[in-house]
Amino acid sequence: MADKVRSLIWANETLRLIDQTKLPAVFQYVECRRWEEVAEAIRTMKVRGAPAIGAAAAFGVVLGAVEHRDKSPEQFAAAVETVIKELAGTRPTAVNLFWALERMEKVLKIQGDKPPAEIIEALRLEAEAIAVEDVKACRSIGSHGAALINNSDGVLTICNAGALATVDYGTALGVIRAAFDQGKDFHVYAAETRPFLQGARLTAWELVEEGIPATLITDNMAGWLMQQGKVQMVIVGADRIAANGDTANKIGTYTFAVLARHHGIPFYVAAPLSTVDLSLGSGREIPIEERASEEVTHLLGHRIAPEGIGVHNPAFDVTPAQLITGIITDVGIIKPPYGENLAKAF
Amino acid sequence: MADKVRSLIWANETLRLIDQTKLPAVFQYVECRRWEEVAEAIRTMKVRGAPAIGAAAAFGVVLGAVEHRDKSPEQFAAAVETVIKELAGTRPTAVNLFWALERMEKVLKIQGDKPPAEIIEALRLEAEAIAVEDVKACRSIGSHGAALINNSDGVLTICNAGALATVDYGTALGVIRAAFDQGKDFHVYAAETRPFLQGARLTAWELVEEGIPATLITDNMAGWLMQQGKVQMVIVGADRIAANGDTANKIGTYTFAVLARHHGIPFYVAAPLSTVDLSLGSGREIPIEERASEEVTHLLGHRIAPEGIGVHNPAFDVTPAQLITGIITDVGIIKPPYGENLAKAF
Repeated sequence: MADKVRSLIWANETLRLIDQTKLPAVFQYVECRRWEEVAEAIRTMKVRGAPAIGAAAAFGVVLGAVEHRDKSPEQFAAAVETVIKELAGTRPTAVNLFWALERMEKVLKIQGDKPPAEIIEALRLEAEAIAVEDVKACRSIGSHGAALINNSDGVLTICNAGALATVDYGTALGVIRAAFDQGKDFHVYAAETRPFLQGARLTAWELVEEGIPATLITDNMAGWLMQQGKVQMVIVGADRIAANGDTANKIGTYTFAVLARHHGIPFYVAAPLSTVDLSLGSGREIPIEERASEEVTHLLGHRIAPEGIGVHNPAFDVTPAQLITGIITDVGIIKPPYGENLAKAF
Repeated sequence: MADKVRSLIWANETLRLIDQTKLPAVFQYVECRRWEEVAEAIRTMKVRGAPAIGAAAAFGVVLGAVEHRDKSPEQFAAAVETVIKELAGTRPTAVNLFWALERMEKVLKIQGDKPPAEIIEALRLEAEAIAVEDVKACRSIGSHGAALINNSDGVLTICNAGALATVDYGTALGVIRAAFDQGKDFHVYAAETRPFLQGARLTAWELVEEGIPATLITDNMAGWLMQQGKVQMVIVGADRIAANGDTANKIGTYTFAVLARHHGIPFYVAAPLSTVDLSLGSGREIPIEERASEEVTHLLGHRIAPEGIGVHNPAFDVTPAQLITGIITDVGIIKPPYGENLAKAF
């Protein structure tokens, strides 16, 4: 699986991204040779998932740098700074985007006024490091979290926190993959995740490809499934985790956390430390992206709702730390109190 | 509005049903001249909503009787019995279907061996009574429930419990209509209701037609909306209410009830007494329809999920009575203890 669904591949000054808007019908890479193409791919969710967005943006900076390679060192640095700023404006919630861009900016600054060619090489190495570290982080998350899944468990997840959402392997799906590879016999319930259907289109696809036993449900079936005793664990990814453990993730995550609490089911977040934003005291400070109403009113280009109806389309919600049983990171499972234990993990 | 969206119209030995699978794109009546067409319309959800199904089935019996009008009284009665049995097999959860068919069967039996023409007339009158009583019941539900909605409230509903789900006016939407007609200033949040999208397609359409301020959300946004303080009341319809108050309604209803409890928000069910099934002690006895997996894996005829993924598609869930603040019926608002107070209402 690993190499098969590597969500992004860098080669020959080209970033190839799996076009996630076309899955599962078509498995196809889109080639980005200019940074604007990367920005557009992030905005339109051809690439999505916090860690994948971060890595894609890092390579976007490299493409921007390549584009300006013939400029003077001064003009070059200014141009790359602009590219970084533009890429940071593509999506507001996933902190990995800003985290990765900050790493790239740091390299740019450390390189100072070296010749552009040299700086480009350093930027490329940094982007590749971000990508490789993400794969390693996901593997670690998987091995730390796998022990939480027991034989005959029902494991509910939302959105796609899989190989597609990262560079490879996945966070929440990384845990599921690791448990499956250990020979555990459990069942995954994938919530379809309206409006963008990442669960139905992407998670279901990854699970089928892996041969992991899985059932697709609509988001509103989660409560009933729990009432019927079919769910023993909820595991989700994260787009940004505040210093106190409050977690922004795909819209619907908070509802699942409330349902899990009501039914006494453990609720886990799986994310690399790069998703933790210690600069925010609580989830109230996390900006929540409101996306276009057409994502709700239209399906496959066809209008499903009447003209004239108002639409609300927040892409994320925030689950308060009190509803989270543990955060499975690349350095281990972090338990409450999160304020203290997240700080320690860094 | 009333006459505009009357979900079913009987005239000239023809039952005209709004084809609810085509809304909101196309407003169109389908004409049923044979009982099999009514059965098919119920099965394929051209007509849906517990009270509307009941009334449609009653007219289906009339059409079946007309078809056999030239038979001997004995053969006629047997043939109509078969029609009743077949219509009862179209959908399992909404009790109004069985309730209406029982009323028709009773008429058939009381008429005994009278000439078929006379019996047909009696059956037609009974079907028309069921339809008229339903409109009256919805108006009563509206006037009993309207007081529960306050100015500046956010009112969340799921599926369609509107004029389309009844003969006219609606149950949950009847309450909303009545409050709106009283000049109250509130906001409705309509959950789209996957997989069949009755909220996005039907409820949103009714609300736009009425000019009631409303916002469409995906089902998984409900928790976040409550956390943001936007919801002061949840009101839903019902497909079957057990003697203890446990309520089967569209899948997702139970999740909303849990969310409402977690946030301290009142959760109301609106339904005519014809939806109460005193023969069932609790919701555990209510049969839950599992519908075709294609409703989840396909949208507008296009596959959205990969081949090979398992699918769960229960059309309803059961909300335990303890999560229900009150049941708004045609004879008033029934409060706990439901076992006692529902029995009293009959």
